[in-house]
Amino acid sequence: MPGSGKSTVARVIAEKLGYPVIVMGDIVREEVARRGLAITAENVERVARELRELRGPGVVAEMVVERAGSLKAEGVVVDGVRSLEEVRVLSRLGKVYIVAVHSPPSLRFKRMKERGREGDIRSLEEFRLRDEANLELGVGSVIALADYMVVNDCSLEELIARAERVAGEIRDASESRSGG
Amino acid sequence: MPGSGKSTVARVIAEKLGYPVIVMGDIVREEVARRGLAITAENVERVARELRELRGPGVVAEMVVERAGSLKAEGVVVDGVRSLEEVRVLSRLGKVYIVAVHSPPSLRFKRMKERGREGDIRSLEEFRLRDEANLELGVGSVIALADYMVVNDCSLEELIARAERVAGEIRDASESRSGG
Repeated sequence: MPGSGKSTVARVIAEKLGYPVIVMGDIVREEVARRGLAITAENVERVARELRELRGPGVVAEMVVERAGSLKAEGVVVDGVRSLEEVRVLSRLGKVYIVAVHSPPSLRFKRMKERGREGDIRSLEEFRLRDEANLELGVGSVIALADYMVVNDCSLEELIARAERVAGEIRDASESRSGG
Repeated sequence: MPGSGKSTVARVIAEKLGYPVIVMGDIVREEVARRGLAITAENVERVARELRELRGPGVVAEMVVERAGSLKAEGVVVDGVRSLEEVRVLSRLGKVYIVAVHSPPSLRFKRMKERGREGDIRSLEEFRLRDEANLELGVGSVIALADYMVVNDCSLEELIARAERVAGEIRDASESRSGG
């Protein structure tokens, strides 16, 4: 969910495992730029919606699969999965470990108002609309079926420690799968 | 989600706060009995579906609101909320604190196979169908918007400790709301 801290968790896990991160939002932002549009939150949302309507709900994940193929890495961390359909597409790359990052809505709202990043929200109304848009894509089902849950109700230091612990568990799980 | 340990968490929180628990599944089971049907997992699911189709997605929550009214308690713990529509109905009772209980699917599957409770699953296929039915009702969105997340990847003792901590936080939050 927006403001949960998932990008921080994605970066920490990727660094710990030595994998690249593919940010699904970046893939859409590149598409926005390719169309010669300004990279605003509105355009990113509009292009993402158009892509999904034209080419199906798994389209951005398909672009991630292509990108991952060109990276030739042993594994990849994907930041920003929004639906089980996207998980299904990503599983073409190999075993998928879903990591959810949860923060209480009150904390997410506070963070997003404070950080003032491009596309961040200014009012509770805007916050609710952003949440709704994410839930409509089906992100709740991905969270419900997560293999790992990182609760971000803590300091940044503690969040990093929690993400590192999950990275270690994923390494162990994938090593025991490959018989290592 | 089924097998997450949510009923244990509900009972611990209720005991700690001195509130009664209303189990949404029990409300449906009573309706099944009232119709003279045997209380099997199939009948409970069928009657729940019929109720929702006839009287809307919030119908079981409405029955909970009625029941809660007759209990005249200061607060109530509701076990088994499946959708944001149900949360909206329950908020007629007062401030709602959503507590989600998360376990990785692999652990939920193991637990449900082992406990062999009435209505528990016997195969991975059955497990997936039960998960899907829950996700279709919208439980993922409730989890995504939870105010508190209890991760149940631990011993029963530790789960109880985690639930007690959440109960304490809810008490503090509701006391500061009422200016206590």
